[in-house]
Amino acid sequence: MFAPGATLASLRAERPLIHQITNYVVMNETANATLALGALPVMAHAAEEVEEMVGLARALVVNIGTLSPPWVEAMLAAGKAANARGIPVVLDPVGAGATRYRTETAKRLLDGIDVTVLRGNAGEVATLVGVKAEVRGVESIAAADDPAELARTAARTLELVASVTGPVDHVSDGVRTLSVANGHELLATVTGTGCMSSAITGCFLAANPAPLEAAAEALAAFGLAGEDAASVAKGPGTFHAALYDALYALTPDSLDERARIS
Amino acid sequence: MFAPGATLASLRAERPLIHQITNYVVMNETANATLALGALPVMAHAAEEVEEMVGLARALVVNIGTLSPPWVEAMLAAGKAANARGIPVVLDPVGAGATRYRTETAKRLLDGIDVTVLRGNAGEVATLVGVKAEVRGVESIAAADDPAELARTAARTLELVASVTGPVDHVSDGVRTLSVANGHELLATVTGTGCMSSAITGCFLAANPAPLEAAAEALAAFGLAGEDAASVAKGPGTFHAALYDALYALTPDSLDERARIS
Amino acid sequence: MFAPGATLASLRAERPLIHQITNYVVMNETANATLALGALPVMAHAAEEVEEMVGLARALVVNIGTLSPPWVEAMLAAGKAANARGIPVVLDPVGAGATRYRTETAKRLLDGIDVTVLRGNAGEVATLVGVKAEVRGVESIAAADDPAELARTAARTLELVASVTGPVDHVSDGVRTLSVANGHELLATVTGTGCMSSAITGCFLAANPAPLEAAAEALAAFGLAGEDAASVAKGPGTFHAALYDALYALTPDSLDERARIS
Repeated sequence: MFAPGATLASLRAERPLIHQITNYVVMNETANATLALGALPVMAHAAEEVEEMVGLARALVVNIGTLSPPWVEAMLAAGKAANARGIPVVLDPVGAGATRYRTETAKRLLDGIDVTVLRGNAGEVATLVGVKAEVRGVESIAAADDPAELARTAARTLELVASVTGPVDHVSDGVRTLSVANGHELLATVTGTGCMSSAITGCFLAANPAPLEAAAEALAAFGLAGEDAASVAKGPGTFHAALYDALYALTPDSLDERARIS
Repeated sequence: MFAPGATLASLRAERPLIHQITNYVVMNETANATLALGALPVMAHAAEEVEEMVGLARALVVNIGTLSPPWVEAMLAAGKAANARGIPVVLDPVGAGATRYRTETAKRLLDGIDVTVLRGNAGEVATLVGVKAEVRGVESIAAADDPAELARTAARTLELVASVTGPVDHVSDGVRTLSVANGHELLATVTGTGCMSSAITGCFLAANPAPLEAAAEALAAFGLAGEDAASVAKGPGTFHAALYDALYALTPDSLDERARIS
Repeated sequence: MFAPGATLASLRAERPLIHQITNYVVMNETANATLALGALPVMAHAAEEVEEMVGLARALVVNIGTLSPPWVEAMLAAGKAANARGIPVVLDPVGAGATRYRTETAKRLLDGIDVTVLRGNAGEVATLVGVKAEVRGVESIAAADDPAELARTAARTLELVASVTGPVDHVSDGVRTLSVANGHELLATVTGTGCMSSAITGCFLAANPAPLEAAAEALAAFGLAGEDAASVAKGPGTFHAALYDALYALTPDSLDERARIS
């Protein structure tokens, strides 16, 4: 049962705090996407405060895009605190498959934290379930043969909701698998749009307790914002600015009408 | 005596270097705001160089938005070096009140450095003078009952100029309290606009030796840029881009005419 | 022999991975410039993975804009791995001359790594060849008397290609010295445009094995994007967004026709 508009309306009424431990490249971008959508972002990574900060949040988003040992420890501590409080955790395994350190860190986070939603591209998710994939840096090069099946396998193997983004997105809890067909190719021309989709997944999880539905709704909302931004953009730079305008302008009614979740 | 236009003209003629030790989320944004206004930003946080870099600067801006122990030590060392040289220091206590680590760090910086201007939202400043406040992450949720009184109390208690921003800003040295009524609600939809106002406060302090006046002039200038940006924006993203255009286009005459400082 | 259009076409066909170890201020910006141009950026700085990541890349870009000891060690390790693999290395010595730490680190990187192209402003490059220069923070204040001669001297002394950017850019291998006259003054109003030109130099080096030509072609391409962005911009903010649009829209034919390399 999808009611993405209702989730969005609830999110804007409640303005949940979304704690993000993310990478240096996209911190400003994920914070602005969170804020434009209607939630409140906070970035905090020090061991001295992550557990306390999680205690104020309604969702935690962890992203290994520019990982290093102290940040990984903070992610683990924050993730465990989130689990103890029963708030949802999103993991974005940026670049898993590119280096051993990224792959092993993503696996360590999956082992140490009860992750609610794993949001990644096909190459990253394939790596984490042992399927061969080509990852060039942080980009997935070859599309998975069957991304819906990949999402289902990841969900079953890792016991979470797998959210595999690409030209069409696939979200699965291992039993049901949804596809989300919103989006625009300009999203691939701006760095950090994958990271933004993870942040927005955290926002929707904070407002909808059903993780499969929340994850799909988030991708529909972000994809729609991409469609709206593309309609006024002249290239990646103006698209990037228009993306925040579109997230801010997105209405619950428009989201309900235009979401292409099936 | 306000002459914000004269301060701006002086700043642009002299292009003072503003040393900023700030958070990962807004570094690009505060650097661009500084540059668009007409001063020169430099970001440096290594213990190996902060004291020497402060020696080249005309103001220091310290911001705890994504604090961790080595950064806090660098802030203390830089602040002491700034004090020794007699250049002004701005402290932005981002998220004070949200976690003990942030509150204690802000107090430690206030104890260890002779801060010229404390620039924060009502929740952060209230926390630092022992008044109860609701801070959600890095956002102040409940407006202070009487923000002018809060600014006055903070200035007296902490022996500095307190600059409390909100729908209307209040700046006090404990004796005189000024209100600044420039600004636009879209400023609250972009992350880091508070941090930008702190950076711009540093710029104005570098060009005007009277800290109460400089702090108020800075908020008027930034608020005016927000008004101008809002007049052409379609949402937070285009507003954000237009904000730098507006800071760059702001003229001393326009600032003198339109500043709403009382 | 210049064929900047052919280099650009090749880069877009191959989408080389450009590994960047750069500063916190501009990470998003250099990643987006790389992506808009047509290459793939990856940011990775942990000792645990830099050597492996370099193994996937076609060029390495090292930038000391917000340096600290662990990052410098990562730059050295990555640089040596790049040398061992025979892929080109760009060094951007941000702020060399401003503090001893920056100057000494830049020299240490030049000693420890076989740098292909040194890309800096006149003050930074002058510092590294022992010529007096005024550097205010990270900005070069006084233009060099003879920047072409400075580039030639730096190339000969440091045994690399020196790429000295300014109102007119000069690129030299010590024997031949090229000037590049593309660009626009608005580039100086946005932070990190120098860093972007270094990232784009890395992209062109990945697609053209002749470093002198590649470095000049990169500056022509970036300068042209600046010209195109300025034609639609209303100030630094809209210019910044338009810069990515222009990099994305730049065609090989337009680059061949409009490049002002001599």
